[in-house]
Amino acid sequence: MINGKILLGGSERDGGEQFAAVDPSSGATLDPMFAEAGAAEVDAACALAAAAYSSFSETDLDTRAAFLEAIADAIVAIGDDLIVRAMAESGLPRARLEGERGRTVGQLKLFASVVRAGDFLDVTIDPALPDRAPLPRPDMRRRNVALGPVAVFGASNFPLAFSVAGGDTASAFAAGCPVVVKGHPAHPGTGELVGRAIQAAVKSCGLHEGVFSLLPGTSNALGGGLVADARIKAVGFTGSRGGGLALVKIAAGRDEPIPVYAEMSSINPVILLPEALRTRGAALAPAFVQSLTMGAGQFCTNPGVVLAIAGAELDAFAEAAAAALTEAKPVQMLTPGIHASFEQGVAALESHAAVTTIARGCVGDGVNQARGAIFRTDAQSFLGDAVLAHEVFGSSSIIVACRDADEIAAVLTALEGQLTATLHHDAGDADMAARLMPVLAQKVGRILANGWPTGVEVAHAMVHGGPFPATSDGRTTSVGTLAIERFLRPVCYQSIPDSLLPPVLRDANPWQVTRRIDGVVTPA
Amino acid sequence: MINGKILLGGSERDGGEQFAAVDPSSGATLDPMFAEAGAAEVDAACALAAAAYSSFSETDLDTRAAFLEAIADAIVAIGDDLIVRAMAESGLPRARLEGERGRTVGQLKLFASVVRAGDFLDVTIDPALPDRAPLPRPDMRRRNVALGPVAVFGASNFPLAFSVAGGDTASAFAAGCPVVVKGHPAHPGTGELVGRAIQAAVKSCGLHEGVFSLLPGTSNALGGGLVADARIKAVGFTGSRGGGLALVKIAAGRDEPIPVYAEMSSINPVILLPEALRTRGAALAPAFVQSLTMGAGQFCTNPGVVLAIAGAELDAFAEAAAAALTEAKPVQMLTPGIHASFEQGVAALESHAAVTTIARGCVGDGVNQARGAIFRTDAQSFLGDAVLAHEVFGSSSIIVACRDADEIAAVLTALEGQLTATLHHDAGDADMAARLMPVLAQKVGRILANGWPTGVEVAHAMVHGGPFPATSDGRTTSVGTLAIERFLRPVCYQSIPDSLLPPVLRDANPWQVTRRIDGVVTPA
Repeated sequence: MINGKILLGGSERDGGEQFAAVDPSSGATLDPMFAEAGAAEVDAACALAAAAYSSFSETDLDTRAAFLEAIADAIVAIGDDLIVRAMAESGLPRARLEGERGRTVGQLKLFASVVRAGDFLDVTIDPALPDRAPLPRPDMRRRNVALGPVAVFGASNFPLAFSVAGGDTASAFAAGCPVVVKGHPAHPGTGELVGRAIQAAVKSCGLHEGVFSLLPGTSNALGGGLVADARIKAVGFTGSRGGGLALVKIAAGRDEPIPVYAEMSSINPVILLPEALRTRGAALAPAFVQSLTMGAGQFCTNPGVVLAIAGAELDAFAEAAAAALTEAKPVQMLTPGIHASFEQGVAALESHAAVTTIARGCVGDGVNQARGAIFRTDAQSFLGDAVLAHEVFGSSSIIVACRDADEIAAVLTALEGQLTATLHHDAGDADMAARLMPVLAQKVGRILANGWPTGVEVAHAMVHGGPFPATSDGRTTSVGTLAIERFLRPVCYQSIPDSLLPPVLRDANPWQVTRRIDGVVTPA
Repeated sequence: MINGKILLGGSERDGGEQFAAVDPSSGATLDPMFAEAGAAEVDAACALAAAAYSSFSETDLDTRAAFLEAIADAIVAIGDDLIVRAMAESGLPRARLEGERGRTVGQLKLFASVVRAGDFLDVTIDPALPDRAPLPRPDMRRRNVALGPVAVFGASNFPLAFSVAGGDTASAFAAGCPVVVKGHPAHPGTGELVGRAIQAAVKSCGLHEGVFSLLPGTSNALGGGLVADARIKAVGFTGSRGGGLALVKIAAGRDEPIPVYAEMSSINPVILLPEALRTRGAALAPAFVQSLTMGAGQFCTNPGVVLAIAGAELDAFAEAAAAALTEAKPVQMLTPGIHASFEQGVAALESHAAVTTIARGCVGDGVNQARGAIFRTDAQSFLGDAVLAHEVFGSSSIIVACRDADEIAAVLTALEGQLTATLHHDAGDADMAARLMPVLAQKVGRILANGWPTGVEVAHAMVHGGPFPATSDGRTTSVGTLAIERFLRPVCYQSIPDSLLPPVLRDANPWQVTRRIDGVVTPA
C-alpha cells in the first residue's frame, strides 16, 4: 500500500533523492524508501493547486462538506495498517494513535458541519436605501472567499491529527482552499496512507485533482520553496520556533507577503495558588507529573513551568512531584533528533547555577526514551535569565518559587506569549485568582482552572493559539472551528444584479445560511 | 484654540524641532508652528497607552460606546473652526469637509452601536459534557479581547474621516485598544483640534488618560519609532505604497512582529462591457470624468484604468470623456508634494511610447492644482510594462483597449490586488459579466456594477480592503464595522468558575450579548 511516491494531484511521481523513515524505538530504518520532492514538484503541485482554486473555492456547501466526510471515511477505511505504520514511525502507542485517528476523523466531520451551516461565510447584507438623503445607499452584500492555495506543514507529534489530513488541512479545505502538504519526514508512510485517502476522496467527489498534493521530503529548501511560491496564499505550520520563524521570514520577503499561521513554542505556566497548594498539593503533584510525562511531554501544551509562593507547602508539592516522577517509566520519543534536543535542553538546566534538579524519571532500557525532568529555581533567577523560560520540548518542567502574589504576577507579565495558562485555586484563593485573570488574558490564548493544559478539545470555543511567540499570529487558533477563519477574506458586492451574485448572496438565500441583514442576525 | 503642542495622554508638551502647516492654494505657511514629536514622546505615549490598556480593554460596553459618542459630540462642538482650519490646510472645499465631518461623526456613532450590540466579542460557549465518553468535556467559553495599544497613521486625503479620529482610531477604540496617532503633517491644526476633542472625551468619560495621544511630526523616524515600540501591538495606516511597506518591514523585523493594516495603492479597474458601451457610452463618459476628477482624484478608489473592447464604441467613449475632461476645472490638490508627484506620474505617461494622451483638464490660475489626465493604450502594451499599472495618485486614468473578452480577463488576471473593480453591463452583457465575476472576486475587495468606485459607504457589508498590494492584509477592511476585527484576538476560558469569568462570559449574560452556545447562535 505504501510505495514512497510523491502525490501530485491525482497522480504519483518519483523524485530524485530518497529518504527512509526511522523506527525511533530501535533506530532502524523502515521500508520502503521515500521520494524526496524538489523544486519541480513544488512547481507542479502549486500549478495544480492554482488551477483547482477557482472551482474548489466556489463549490456549494454540500459538495465541500461531503468531501471532508469522504476523507474521514477513507481514513477509517485504511484500517489497522494506518495504526501499525504510525506506531512504527512515531513510537506512539496503539491506544494513543487510535484515539488520534478518532480525533482526526471527528475534526474533519466537525468542519463538514461548519461548512454545511455556512456561518463561516459571514453573509452580510445592507439593502439599498433609495430614498436616503443626501445620497441613496446602494445595495451591498458581503461574503468570505477562500484565500487561495494553502501550504500545510505536518507536525511530528500528531502524525494524524496535525499532519496530512490534520487540523490545518481540514480547516483550509473547509474554507475552500486547495492544499499542498509538505509531509513530515518522521512519518512519511503514515503521511502517504492518509494522502492517498485524500486523493481518493478528491476523485470520488469529482473535484479538480489539484485540490490536494503531498510533497514528502527532508530538506528545508523544499519547505522554503513551497512558501516562496507565488501561487501559495497562506501557510499552516506546527513545529519548532526556529522552523516557524524561518517560514515567517520567507513569507514576509515575498513580492506578495502572505500570512503564516505557525504554532511554535509555549511553556504553559501552571500557577498553584496558596489554598489549593495547601489543601490539595499532595493530589496535584501526581496529576502534574502525569500531565508532564504523558506522551513523553511532546505536546505544545506541556506544563513547562510551575509558579507558586515559596514555603513548606511548595516544598511538599515538589517532594511529592519528585517522588512521582522518580517512579515514572521512560517514554519513547518521536524521533532521535527530538530526543537529542530534549537531552540537550535538560542537561543545560541541570548544569545551570541557579537551578536545582528536583528529580529525573527512570532510566529506560531502550533508545530515544525520555526521562522526565523537574527543576526548581526562584523568581529572581527565572526573571534574570531568559534561557530558563525557553521551551524544552518533552517532559521537562521548572518550578519557580515566588515570594508573593506580586512576584507571581511579575513572572507572568515577563513571560513571552503562551498557548495556555492554568490556575489551581480553591475558595480562599479567590482574590488572588481574580487579580491574575486579566494578566493571563493578556498573555495566553487559553486559561484553565483546576485542570491541566494537555488535552485540547476540538470545539467551537477552543483557542489553540496565543500571542507571539506561542504563534506567529495571535489573532487566530489552529484547533477548533474558528481555525477556518485563517483562510478567508471578505469581498463586498455593490449593486450587483441577483443573477450575477454568487448563490449564497442571492435574495432567495438558496444555500439557506444565516445572514446579517442591516446589522441584524437573521436565520434562514 | 490651536497651540501646536504634542498631546500626551491628558497633558500637552513642547517638542524640539518645529514645523508649519502649508496652505496648498497659496503655498504660504500657516500659524502656529507645531512641535515635532521625537523619541521621548513616542516613549511617553506608548508608556501611557500600555498603562491604559488593562482598564480600557475591559470597560463595559456602555462605557466604551459612550466614549465613542462623546468624541463625536466633542468634534461637532468644535464648530466651524474645524472646517475653516481643515479648508486652509487641505485645500478641500467647505461642502466636502462638512460632509466628511458628518461621516466621521457617523462612523464613531456606528462603532458605538457595534460596541453596544457586543457581537464583536464573538462570545462562544461549549458547555461541559460531564457524561461524555471516554472523557468528559470541560466547560469552554471564548471571547475576543483587544490586541493592545494601536498606532494610527492619519491619511492626507481624509483629514477628518481617516485621520486623528477616523476609521482606524474609531475601530481600535471600539475594540478596546488605546491609540497613539502619528499625526499627518499636512493638517496638524485640524489634527490638534480633533485630538483635543478626544482628550476631552477621555476625561469626561473618566477613562485612563493613556487611552489617547497625538504625536505630530514630519519625520519618517517618528513613525518608524512608534511602530518599533514593543508596547504597540498593531498598526493602522492609509497612504502610499512606499510608506506602508516601510512600516510593514519595521513591524516584521521586531522581536515580536505585529500586524500592520496598511491601505496602500489601487488603480480600481472599470470594465465597460460591449452592450453597456454601445447603448450608454455617451452617458458613461461624463460620469467617468466626474468620478475621476472629483476631489482632484485624491481617493484610494479613483478609477485609474478603464478596460473595454477596442472599436468604434470605445473610440466614441474616449472622445466623449476627452471632451468632458477638457472642460473640467482644475482642482486644488492636498499638498505641494502630492501635486508634484501627480505631475511627475502624468508626465511619465505622456512621454511613454505606447501611450496616447487623450485629454488633459484645463490649466488653472492657482498653484498645486490638478489638471486631470486621460490616456490610452492597448492591452498588450499594458501587459508588457508594469509601470502602466502603477497608481498615479490624482485624477489620472488610462483606457486599455482589448481585443476581446479573453484579453480583458487576461489584463484583470495580471493586475495586482485592488480595492475595487467596477463592471458596467447591460442585459446583453450577461454572459461576459458572469464570466468575469469570479476573476474579480479573486482580485479585489469590492465589486460594483453600473456605478463608480469613488464613494465608500461606512456599513456592515463594506469592504475597503483587498489583496496585496491594495492592502498589506487582504483579510481585513479599513472601512465599515468589520474593521473592528483587526484589533481583536480570541481567548478561551476553560473550567473557570463563574465568579472569575469576565462578565460577558458569565452564565447570567449580564451584558446581554448574542452567544453561540454549542454551535447555535442564541440571542440574549
